[in-house]
Amino acid sequence: MGRIKDIRPLKWTEEVLLLIDQRKLPLQEEWVECKSYEDVAKAIEDMVVRGAPAIGVVAAYGVVLGAKEAAKSSENLMDFKARVELIINRLAATRPTAVNLFWALKRMRRILEAGGNIEDVVAALETEAINIERQDVETNKKIGFFGAELLSSKEVILTHCNTGALATAGYGTALGVIRAAVENGKDVTVYVDETRPYLQGARLTAWELQQEGIPYYLITDNMAGWFMSLGEITCVIVGADRIARNGDTANKIGTYSLSVLAKEHGIPFYIAAPTSTFDLSISSGKEIPIEERSADEVVFCHCKDCRIAPYGAKVKNPAFDVTPHENITGIITEKGVIHSPDEKKILEFFRE
Amino acid sequence: MGRIKDIRPLKWTEEVLLLIDQRKLPLQEEWVECKSYEDVAKAIEDMVVRGAPAIGVVAAYGVVLGAKEAAKSSENLMDFKARVELIINRLAATRPTAVNLFWALKRMRRILEAGGNIEDVVAALETEAINIERQDVETNKKIGFFGAELLSSKEVILTHCNTGALATAGYGTALGVIRAAVENGKDVTVYVDETRPYLQGARLTAWELQQEGIPYYLITDNMAGWFMSLGEITCVIVGADRIARNGDTANKIGTYSLSVLAKEHGIPFYIAAPTSTFDLSISSGKEIPIEERSADEVVFCHCKDCRIAPYGAKVKNPAFDVTPHENITGIITEKGVIHSPDEKKILEFFRE
Repeated sequence: MGRIKDIRPLKWTEEVLLLIDQRKLPLQEEWVECKSYEDVAKAIEDMVVRGAPAIGVVAAYGVVLGAKEAAKSSENLMDFKARVELIINRLAATRPTAVNLFWALKRMRRILEAGGNIEDVVAALETEAINIERQDVETNKKIGFFGAELLSSKEVILTHCNTGALATAGYGTALGVIRAAVENGKDVTVYVDETRPYLQGARLTAWELQQEGIPYYLITDNMAGWFMSLGEITCVIVGADRIARNGDTANKIGTYSLSVLAKEHGIPFYIAAPTSTFDLSISSGKEIPIEERSADEVVFCHCKDCRIAPYGAKVKNPAFDVTPHENITGIITEKGVIHSPDEKKILEFFRE
Repeated sequence: MGRIKDIRPLKWTEEVLLLIDQRKLPLQEEWVECKSYEDVAKAIEDMVVRGAPAIGVVAAYGVVLGAKEAAKSSENLMDFKARVELIINRLAATRPTAVNLFWALKRMRRILEAGGNIEDVVAALETEAINIERQDVETNKKIGFFGAELLSSKEVILTHCNTGALATAGYGTALGVIRAAVENGKDVTVYVDETRPYLQGARLTAWELQQEGIPYYLITDNMAGWFMSLGEITCVIVGADRIARNGDTANKIGTYSLSVLAKEHGIPFYIAAPTSTFDLSISSGKEIPIEERSADEVVFCHCKDCRIAPYGAKVKNPAFDVTPHENITGIITEKGVIHSPDEKKILEFFRE
């Protein structure tokens, strides 16, 4: 078992939110200073930080920075609340697919609405953001616990994108399950999809596994099915950006194909995500908005020093896809596992 | 319908073989001069030229260059033949998977063995190489003819890797079918898999389609299944590097996954390849050697200016995979289409 380093994508210092620049990993470890809510909004839009749970935590701190700014110039509580409301709306407009963002902002809005004087509200907002961050790490460790229980003593796990410490407040969701399995002494090897176009697998997941000494192989996304057919993969675990009431799951583009390939080969396919990833207001994945991102992510090589496609190339670049619940063996949450998820099971799970 | 430009990856000038440097496309159009068989062998190994049929043609010219060299220093016919035999072996050792290489070298060896004096043999070898090149273009146009007949008047075709003029002596196999369909006035849109790690789709297929004005979208490999699930793809056509007696087909890594995804969505999945791609000596795909290529293709961005994976990353990089014949709707050859291919149908097809 390797050393389990405490990787964190953010540091809160009351006046500044520091974010590790995930665009520069794995070669450079640079930190970006966010001094205003607008800095935070831009950091989310520009992918300084990414990963559904991490975006939620970071947006919450964005509200705190915004509230501190607003407190200075607000004439009264009503004026202050209206300003913070606009700040919340700005942060909510950064990315459309991951629901954890909206979930975290809803928690912040509830604090805002609870009232008190301006100073008290600012303090309460800060406490809430810190709680969201702390709870996320605890949540991930519980996901890890329930996930590791599903695994046998020896597994070769395929994962996609980055669902690690960097994608959350720490520890990770799908990668948290892998961490927990390793901590429990299981013999785990990971196949890491590089995850084009943004290469979160190659750059971030490989980096986290490398630091922790967990054995892994980096592969290109199009190799996953082939290794399944060779019998080299025993299970697939990925994260989620939004889960509909029926279990349909939006996650990084490429997840859907992996679910079909896993089904074809009789390999269990797990989603690992906190309950904050569920959006019970929508009945199926058809209602999940899929973000279309810039063609530049596809037509340039990663360091942008060369084009890898001809001038004028037309590109499609959906950042996410939706995996139908029928393809999902189980959803691993901090409250337990929903096996063969469907609407009935999910509603029951949340009723308890 | 766009202009159909006459793209060729090679030019033979009796003393020099010119190869367009496919590593530098689409941004630079540079030609590499091969003056010796060793230059040709290195050009194949280094991917200056790639694509199963193109490699066969180029290797044949490599034999001619080698024979011309050997003729100068050979003491007698037996000595000459032994030298050329070694040259053929050197060229055969460049890449292991595509069988067209061995097929072309076998044709050259047959000429060598037929005898005559040294001068006659050299001339006959040159004639044979020119014939292999010319026949390949004719063959591809016939594949195009039979393939286009399978398509309806409006198709959205997903393709993988580059199977175009650059991968052959001209016109292409799977891309030849697309060219033929466009020439026949069909309404064709192409979804081009970028084809990691070497990006033959993004760099070469997109470049060919762009020049010809055939509408296309470049996508990352992991998007293919998602677009199938959205109903955006009506058929898949890819090439082949080696086809076993039972129809199992080795082709660029990622092909197998596409075949599973096409099956899941009820989308026809075609292989387009000359009959020289068949290896009737092997009973199934299990016997096809799969080339493992350098990790550098995966861990560096295309222009090699940055690493996209941490130092020390372990990588798997199989260049090909094998699609079982059960997943193949039809194999399109220059002699017609083998529908739902299996050993019986393939042996019958070759008996005729």
